[in-house]
Amino acid sequence: MSKYCFGVDVGGTTVKLGLFSTEGDLLEKWEIPTVTEDGGKAILPDIARSIQKMMDEREMARDEVVGVGIGAPGPIDSEGTVYGAVNLGWGTFSIKKELQTLLNVPVEAGNDANVAALGEMWQGGARGYENVVMVTLGTGVGGGIIVGSRILPGATGAGGEIGHMHVNDKEEIACNCGNHGCLEQYVSATGVVRLAKEKLAESDRPSALRDTEVTAKDVWDAAKKADPLAMEVAEDFGWILGKALASVACVVNPEVFVIGGGVSKAGDILIDYIQKNYQKYAFTGCRGALFTLAKLGNDAGIYGAARMVLK
Amino acid sequence: MSKYCFGVDVGGTTVKLGLFSTEGDLLEKWEIPTVTEDGGKAILPDIARSIQKMMDEREMARDEVVGVGIGAPGPIDSEGTVYGAVNLGWGTFSIKKELQTLLNVPVEAGNDANVAALGEMWQGGARGYENVVMVTLGTGVGGGIIVGSRILPGATGAGGEIGHMHVNDKEEIACNCGNHGCLEQYVSATGVVRLAKEKLAESDRPSALRDTEVTAKDVWDAAKKADPLAMEVAEDFGWILGKALASVACVVNPEVFVIGGGVSKAGDILIDYIQKNYQKYAFTGCRGALFTLAKLGNDAGIYGAARMVLK
Repeated sequence: MSKYCFGVDVGGTTVKLGLFSTEGDLLEKWEIPTVTEDGGKAILPDIARSIQKMMDEREMARDEVVGVGIGAPGPIDSEGTVYGAVNLGWGTFSIKKELQTLLNVPVEAGNDANVAALGEMWQGGARGYENVVMVTLGTGVGGGIIVGSRILPGATGAGGEIGHMHVNDKEEIACNCGNHGCLEQYVSATGVVRLAKEKLAESDRPSALRDTEVTAKDVWDAAKKADPLAMEVAEDFGWILGKALASVACVVNPEVFVIGGGVSKAGDILIDYIQKNYQKYAFTGCRGALFTLAKLGNDAGIYGAARMVLK
Repeated sequence: MSKYCFGVDVGGTTVKLGLFSTEGDLLEKWEIPTVTEDGGKAILPDIARSIQKMMDEREMARDEVVGVGIGAPGPIDSEGTVYGAVNLGWGTFSIKKELQTLLNVPVEAGNDANVAALGEMWQGGARGYENVVMVTLGTGVGGGIIVGSRILPGATGAGGEIGHMHVNDKEEIACNCGNHGCLEQYVSATGVVRLAKEKLAESDRPSALRDTEVTAKDVWDAAKKADPLAMEVAEDFGWILGKALASVACVVNPEVFVIGGGVSKAGDILIDYIQKNYQKYAFTGCRGALFTLAKLGNDAGIYGAARMVLK
């Protein structure tokens, strides 16, 4: 008898769902809208209905379904309890218990960044490894820590929040979290643009980045073409992130770092700048860590969610 | 039938051994010398003989012994393989397999700092918690990370090596590890003395620390008596360590930090200086972490080693 599992990735506007074989093949994926009205109380029933429909269509028996994993944007502990998810309207409750009651199959829940890390470990850039740190470079900086093939959620679901490591004592602008000098303020897409703008303002050196509405992509494109100013921005980016990841390695000593998120589309150049700085600051025993790019893109969440229900 | 476990803590000059009930009572403890000659090849046979002797004396059957846990100073992975332990003369081999063969009972092995953290979780300062970061402030700075009641050894046994987090870009003196600007260079016993000497050299302000051979204990004693210069040293110590632990929390989000090692004998004043700085830099979701002092002193290693063999 074949066995299946479902992976669910709840976002602020759409819920992504995936049906997987327990071997890790994505058999089908689809989306439903996220209804955030009324404290997001329709979200889990909508998900349950959608999964039930898929099971009916495929004439799947309940005991063919190993379980349903679900990732959501908020702090979620190892028991599957979410402590508020602002973008979904959710307060504090057990996602695991509620969805289990609706579907009558085992459910596991985790923070979306952590779950994406697990997805990359299962079928993505970190396939074949068990101890993984994923860094998601998007509008903000997310992170996920995998230890012995399992998510490290932390005591209050804040495990892997490496975007909020303090890296600069002199910062005067506040991070979205309220602190000053968080990693995210420099190496997110927004952060890279800011580093570039500061560098442009320091002098009137010529650069492909001058007199344009600079994006993070522009910076990496220019750096690839050896634009000196863009290369300096890339160097600053790599120095700040490589140094921070060396500190992360002193804590969890991973086999591999996976770099994902929109900024990671820049490709291998990113790894080069991060890794050479990492090597400089890493503790001897951690220097062998590998660096790879994420491979699953927006599907990392459904992969990781599905993987959560496998032992 | 009562069940027992043994905890072994291998140091450079003596091996500490403890016999425990599986409930966590230390029934007997003793020491044997560490024979480091010939690549330390006598160490495990000596330990096995000593445990066997204790079992004979107490007429213990083999099936009454749940197992033997062993902590040693070196990187040790989750399979019980040590990757060199300079102080013991050891190269790379499986401690777990070798001691298991000698004793014919289950064996687990771990790095001594990690094992001490597990001991403090079991019966010490972090009793009742499952997610713990221990910081050992001695001649150097060690650390141990406990996640879900288990040691986080890391890919190459370097998990919890927080003494080698990079915290200062301007450092010119090398750390023992070869890097520059490691946490250990400022908040170990040696580090605190160095901070004090630098502060003394900056001016000729009066202080109880002037014209003496300053020790870390002197600094804390003077700070307790409100010596202004010593209080500034304490503030610098707390700022550097509190900030670093805020970064550690962004990675593993513990319930509690346990402060141990010789420097921790200074007591609650240490916690005060660390915690107020931690609060300032910690990510919102991690601010609730508690700070406690270690309670087991030199016995933490045997407690933690024994705890390793319990599920």
